[in-house]
This record gives sequence, structure tokens and C-alpha cells, in this order.
Amino acid sequence: MSLANPGMPRQRHPCKNLVLYFHDVVYNGQNAANATAAIVGAPQWGNLTILADKFHFGNVVVFDDPITLDNNFHSAPVGRAQGMYIYDTKNTFTAWLAFTFVLNNPQHNGTISFIGADPIMVKSRDISVIGGTGDFLMHRGVATVMTDAYEGDVYFRLRVDIKFYECWGGFKCEPLFGCEREDNRERDMWRMNRRHVRSTADD
Amino acid sequence: MSLANPGMPRQRHPCKNLVLYFHDVVYNGQNAANATAAIVGAPQWGNLTILADKFHFGNVVVFDDPITLDNNFHSAPVGRAQGMYIYDTKNTFTAWLAFTFVLNNPQHNGTISFIGADPIMVKSRDISVIGGTGDFLMHRGVATVMTDAYEGDVYFRLRVDIKFYECWGGFKCEPLFGCEREDNRERDMWRMNRRHVRSTADD
Amino acid sequence: MSLANPGMPRQRHPCKNLVLYFHDVVYNGQNAANATAAIVGAPQWGNLTILADKFHFGNVVVFDDPITLDNNFHSAPVGRAQGMYIYDTKNTFTAWLAFTFVLNNPQHNGTISFIGADPIMVKSRDISVIGGTGDFLMHRGVATVMTDAYEGDVYFRLRVDIKFYECWGGFKCEPLFGCEREDNRERDMWRMNRRHVRSTADD
Repeated sequence: MSLANPGMPRQRHPCKNLVLYFHDVVYNGQNAANATAAIVGAPQWGNLTILADKFHFGNVVVFDDPITLDNNFHSAPVGRAQGMYIYDTKNTFTAWLAFTFVLNNPQHNGTISFIGADPIMVKSRDISVIGGTGDFLMHRGVATVMTDAYEGDVYFRLRVDIKFYECWGGFKCEPLFGCEREDNRERDMWRMNRRHVRSTADD
Repeated sequence: MSLANPGMPRQRHPCKNLVLYFHDVVYNGQNAANATAAIVGAPQWGNLTILADKFHFGNVVVFDDPITLDNNFHSAPVGRAQGMYIYDTKNTFTAWLAFTFVLNNPQHNGTISFIGADPIMVKSRDISVIGGTGDFLMHRGVATVMTDAYEGDVYFRLRVDIKFYECWGGFKCEPLFGCEREDNRERDMWRMNRRHVRSTADD
Repeated sequence: MSLANPGMPRQRHPCKNLVLYFHDVVYNGQNAANATAAIVGAPQWGNLTILADKFHFGNVVVFDDPITLDNNFHSAPVGRAQGMYIYDTKNTFTAWLAFTFVLNNPQHNGTISFIGADPIMVKSRDISVIGGTGDFLMHRGVATVMTDAYEGDVYFRLRVDIKFYECWGGFKCEPLFGCEREDNRERDMWRMNRRHVRSTADD
């Protein structure tokens, strides 16, 4: 039996875990060569090279940020974080995130999409992992986001701790199956299925 | 046995239900103190203080709206609705919504994220509940949206009736398990699991 | 027994498949009558009638595009694709998509929501199907997107091959159940459930 802890309700831990960093350099009118992000929407009182007054409320930023395995901006990127964020409160710093990790490296090939509220001033914030493709086909989960570093309004680095609770093909961490490796589960499912087929045939 | 209706296919009803209201006050150049939303994108024929001609087609609005338990704008907020909407048709009023409920109150602590088309002139519209965190971790479902009130182009109030069909940890309303309370399901799963373990051990 | 291939792990094929086309005509200042999309956000170096330099990086486009069953722009629409796309790289053409298919025809009534990265220069790209309503309630899957045609910066047509791996009520293509028709599965679940009830009653 491959179930890690037979006969007992299982802990709910992730079927897959991934920690990645991404680096955002906002265009400010003078850093065209290095910028990975640009302000593309602003409220009436804003403009497109300086984040707006009132806690940047209403700024829309489009980005194509390098993803790295560690917190070093100069590490070799393992993919790109692409999408948008919005500053969305006028009396504190909060953002709303909607973006996709595009991973293309020996370890991971596929995309992971995220959406959620980002109360920036809180140390650790959870957003939703809403879908994936390739190696992450049909994956869902939660990502814990932390601001790992920032420099004024131009640079920030986010640490993203992705916990998938639903992996390929509906593989989940549930009491019935625990959090086994997928091929173990295949085998167990096959056994259950065979049993189901046999007993149904008896009806 | 805790199954509500053993031996029969189950009704598909939600594992959790939540009705909330949120209130949107669009900035029009004169209501800075009260505004909870701002126009941040407009088509070439528009501007950032008046919703554009052609049914506001192309307007992008960022919002941070109070959520209340009833339809009273002055009720104590139980959270914030944060994100964006877009007016997206040029010959009628339709919007596209992408936002997150951030709930932080004695009853609920967590986020719920939504996406979908909002044909505003239709009385009741369904959008998708695509993910959640905290109390709503891994939740999915559907939300029925109704315009509960509006005042010109500046204020509207939406009633959001959220029906979760998938709750924590893959708990679903399925024929096999019905829509039991989660701890009942835990118990049943544990029993099934034990049985599975026992019979597999016989192989 | 309705399982297609009893006693063997199942292939993971979709529980539902749908191929649709949609047609995007971007407003360029001179085609107001025909345009189905408008540039509503641009970086500091752009404007709202011409897609920006640097591979359109930072352009935000809102659209309400007709959906057709074949690749003919003049075919009767079966619905509308509504939402937004963003050009998000400054040294090649990539986009980020977030939109909803609103289908309302004799075959399909409901919505399907999509999010994902679209590396336009790649022939075939996968994005995530993150939710649905109506006929597509709770559906999830993947959509393979191909540029079927384009004319300069004003027109493009996308072919969208939608593969749902999770259909109504958690119906999935899993080894345990295979990819049966839903009513077959209902019947099988009912049988399993009855068995479960009977044997639990013996405990």
C-alpha cells in the first residue's frame, strides 16, 4: 500500500511546491533599456512616467519580468512573469494582480496563472493560482507573495511561494488518497477501478 | 450514515452560499472624497472623468469598493471588493469584471476571486468564482450578480449571490458524497479509505 | 459496465471539446463602424489609435469580438468574445489574454473564461480555461490558440481549440471513472454510492 498513513485522515499538504522570484523595473522616462514594466493607465490626476498621488490609486502597470530561482536580479532567468497589476486603494498601498508565469527551462515547461488582492504593506499575502498549462496543466492552488526588496518606486522583487493543492488530472491532496506521488495514485486508482468493475459486474 | 439521501443521485447544491453587496462610486472630477473607483483607461474618444460615448465602450475602471451584508451604503463594511471592470460593447451596456473580495471580519477571513462577462441590462447575470484564499482556499463556484441600485453614471450597487460548488480541499457536491458538512465527509472518507486499505491488503 | 476500457488506467482525454474562431478589428481612428476593439491603454510613448512602438509593449485593448464556428468573418456569430488583451514584451510580440466567451445559440448557452500568456509568434499556444457558467458551469481546461489570419495591425482571427478536462459538477477524466458520458457516470456513481451505503451500514 502506498498511502502514506493508511486508516487516518490525511494532512492537507501541497502536491507540488515551487518558490520563485520575479523582478519588476518600472519605466520612469529615463530607464528604457532596463525597464521591464510600464505604466499604461492612470487616473485623471496621474501620468505615465510617475506613479500617481493617493497611493498610486488607479495606476495600471503592464509587465514582462524575469523570474529567477533565487533573490539575485542577475541570476539567469528561468522564465518570465507577464501580465498586469493595478494600484487600487487611495489611502494605503494595495494592488490587484493578474499575471502568468511562463516557465521554459530544464526543470519546468509550462505556464501558471495567478489572480488576487495584494495588500502590499502586509508582510505575506495569499493570492490564487487559478490554472496552468504544460507541466502545470489543470493545476490550482495558492501562492504566498512577499516583497523581498524594493528601491523607491522603480524596482521591486517578489518572492512567490506556490503551493499546488490540485495537480495534473485532478490529483489532489484528499483524505481518500493522501498526497502520494502521481504514479502511485495511478496504481491505486487502477486497483480501485478493477475492484469497482468486478463488483459492478456482479450486480 | 451522514449522506442526506442515501441510495439516490444527489441534488447538486452549493457546499457554501454567501450573499454580499458592494458599492461603487466613480470619480467624476468633483467627488474625490467619496469616490471608490476611478476611470483609468478610455478609448481615443473618451477621457478620465466622464464615462465615454458609445455605451462607455473601452472605459477601464479600477475600484476599491466597500462590501456590506445588506443593501445599505452606510452599513459597516465587512470587506473590500478590489479590481477592475471594463465596458466592452459599443451598442449596449456590457462590462467585463475581474476582481477579488477581501473579507476580514468575524465571520469570514480570506479572499474570493471572480471573472466574467456582465451583460448589465440583463436582470441577473452569472460570473465565475475562480479561486480563493484563507477561509475560501481552493473554492470555486458561480456568482449571480444583480444591479441592486444605481444613480446616473456615478453610483451603482451590486448584489452578489455566491454559490460555491467546490469548497476546501476538493470538497464537492457530487452524487458519491452528496453535500455533507466537511467533517462528516472526513469521517466517511476515512471509513472508505480504511475499507480500501483493508481490501487492497487482501490482494 | 460503461467504463470504456475496464481494468486499465484511462487515457486522459477531454470530457468536452469545442473549436471556435473569433475576429478582432482594432479601432484605428478611421474604422469606427467596423471596429470590435479599441486601444484603451498605452505606454508613455504610445497613443490610442496606433499600436505602440517596441512591439506594442504596454498597449491595452478592450474587445467585443464576434465568435464563429468556422474561419469566415461573415459567418453568423454564435456568441461574443469579451475582455482584454495586453501587449507585454518590448523585444518580441507577446500578449496576455483575459476574456470570456459569451455563447448564446441553440448548441451552447453559457460563458467560458480564459486567462493566459500568448506568445504570438509561436504557432500554437496554450492558455487556461479557468471557469464557466450555464452549460459550462464549473468547467475547467486548456485552450490551444492559433493565429488563423491577420491583416497588418488592424485585423486578426484566432482559432481556439477548447479542451475541458473538468466538466459539470466535478466530472473529470480520471482513471477511476474514465471519460464517460455524464449520465453514465451518474449511474455508476449511484451504484458505487449504494454499495458504499450498504457496506457502511454493516459497520
